[in-house]
Amino acid sequence: MLADTLAAIAPVDDTLAATAQTRLDNLTKPPGSLGRLESLVQSLICMSGDIVPRVSPPGVIVFAADHGVAEEGVSAFPQEVTAQMVTNFAAGGAAINVFARQIGARLEVVDVGVNGDVEGEGVVCDKVRRGTANFCREDAMSLAEAKRAIEVGIRAAGRSHDAGCRCLIVGEMGIANTTSSSALLAALSGLSVSRLVGQGTGIDISRLSHKAEVIEGALVARKPDPAQPLEVLAKLGGLEIAAMAGAYLGAAARRMPILVDGFIATVAALVACRLAPAVRGYLLFAHRSCEPGHDAALELLEARPLLDLQLRLGEGTGAALAFPLLEAACRMLSEMATFASAGVASGDKAE
Amino acid sequence: MLADTLAAIAPVDDTLAATAQTRLDNLTKPPGSLGRLESLVQSLICMSGDIVPRVSPPGVIVFAADHGVAEEGVSAFPQEVTAQMVTNFAAGGAAINVFARQIGARLEVVDVGVNGDVEGEGVVCDKVRRGTANFCREDAMSLAEAKRAIEVGIRAAGRSHDAGCRCLIVGEMGIANTTSSSALLAALSGLSVSRLVGQGTGIDISRLSHKAEVIEGALVARKPDPAQPLEVLAKLGGLEIAAMAGAYLGAAARRMPILVDGFIATVAALVACRLAPAVRGYLLFAHRSCEPGHDAALELLEARPLLDLQLRLGEGTGAALAFPLLEAACRMLSEMATFASAGVASGDKAE
Repeated sequence: MLADTLAAIAPVDDTLAATAQTRLDNLTKPPGSLGRLESLVQSLICMSGDIVPRVSPPGVIVFAADHGVAEEGVSAFPQEVTAQMVTNFAAGGAAINVFARQIGARLEVVDVGVNGDVEGEGVVCDKVRRGTANFCREDAMSLAEAKRAIEVGIRAAGRSHDAGCRCLIVGEMGIANTTSSSALLAALSGLSVSRLVGQGTGIDISRLSHKAEVIEGALVARKPDPAQPLEVLAKLGGLEIAAMAGAYLGAAARRMPILVDGFIATVAALVACRLAPAVRGYLLFAHRSCEPGHDAALELLEARPLLDLQLRLGEGTGAALAFPLLEAACRMLSEMATFASAGVASGDKAE
Repeated sequence: MLADTLAAIAPVDDTLAATAQTRLDNLTKPPGSLGRLESLVQSLICMSGDIVPRVSPPGVIVFAADHGVAEEGVSAFPQEVTAQMVTNFAAGGAAINVFARQIGARLEVVDVGVNGDVEGEGVVCDKVRRGTANFCREDAMSLAEAKRAIEVGIRAAGRSHDAGCRCLIVGEMGIANTTSSSALLAALSGLSVSRLVGQGTGIDISRLSHKAEVIEGALVARKPDPAQPLEVLAKLGGLEIAAMAGAYLGAAARRMPILVDGFIATVAALVACRLAPAVRGYLLFAHRSCEPGHDAALELLEARPLLDLQLRLGEGTGAALAFPLLEAACRMLSEMATFASAGVASGDKAE
């Protein structure tokens, strides 16, 4: 399934950009005056192949899993919170529930590796294992498990697509997953851990240096080879991060635009792009978070996010908040009058 | 009416900020992790006095007027476009129509000084005069006309309020109004014109220096006194800019949060704050536009906008695009579960 999906990912169709530009310049506004909204809709056209692209309804998938490295004391919250928050998602009370409702999204929560039985109606159980191993001591998971977790994500993206979703947002819940993400990013980029680690959900400064030491130790012990992204993922990754990367692969294979959330989602996007570089063409970036590693990950992907609101929550919340801008870009193209249809004189450029 | 409105503007109630913070910290998310959304909702509480604030439905008012200075050739578009665009607003085909529909706004278009008879159903005619005079040769309008235009805005804000709107967005249409706004900003701030002028709807570089010369000449000829904001407005302003300032005054007097659009809207906000400093507490800033003067105006108001999307359209479009963030901030507070209600363990800070 992974091999088939990788083979199905085609580059975006850049030949449609010129047609899109002509359409944009005929709308009743000075050419270029809607700035990034105009480049957004051009990107959506090239991704979808549809000259009048739509992004609604969006699909939001939240993957939840636990991390063995949590036992090193790298998070402000205890590990049980992963399962408790999944229950909160099922009950509709978390931030992503609120923002997903606001944008009319189909929300799906997938247990890909929570360490315990999750209560809550409507949670898809597609568990690969009960949390990863502590990567300070052994590989977080086997290569086969990493592949299976990626395939959980591919399947979930397929369900969103088949349910009619036109744009994919992927979120996560997993106590200690900024630690796993920072380790993955350091391994894939060669950047120094001290530059990448951040406060996550809110640890203090002494715990921050401990978190950096934990990651540095793991990199020495695991010896990940950056040229082997699947191996890096297995050694240092999280099950939910693997599933997120899989969801990106699955969406790109179906030409669905992807709106990438914060730090963890961006690291998962980097993993997906290392597995299949053409995925990059399907990615739009929602926001710049507080986590210092996010800047580095965005730079590696040459990404310029839409929002900068000092968010550091995850769950897909930042992407859900940015989604109305994509919706607006589509509506601009499909609903605005042209100079000719509205009888408005055009400016200098048309004289 | 202007005097009564100015007298009715009370400072925002900062004593509610602490209560708001406690409520925010009980929600199922790490404290502070929703960043600027959290400070937004605190501001909305202090503005409205409501501990569970609402911003929907929003009201959008677009004021349209012509500018005598257009005859100096400072715009990329001919003056007739002002009236043509009002007709386009009435028909629902302009960008602000599209974005106002997306956010479920009540949209009102007010002709406060278009130079001609405007066609289009539903346009409120509250015309003070048929365009301003060319401020290179004489004052743009009399003091009495400036006051009347402000009162047009106060009335319009009142209609939005009475129709149930919970947040005000004010936009504009008026060929050459970046020229008037740049002149107003230079006069009120003492900053050099060359630092403030920009391409507006899209003039080329040679016309840009001409635009700066036109403004510099007008400042010498009109001798506006920055300590007299109403006089500055009369000498250099536009009728729609005066009406926008009036709408801010009217909204603040009714404790309605105001989401300020781009360059022209921010200059109008500066005028309103010079007339009544307490207005500042009711202003939220939607975006940073391409117009260089916008940065300067934002700095004078100590404002940090929500978006930076290289917009330069006006009409209230940038504010309409930012509005879903205000809506999300309100929903966060009213819809999210608390740690206690969801049975989620809280983090370090609550231990």
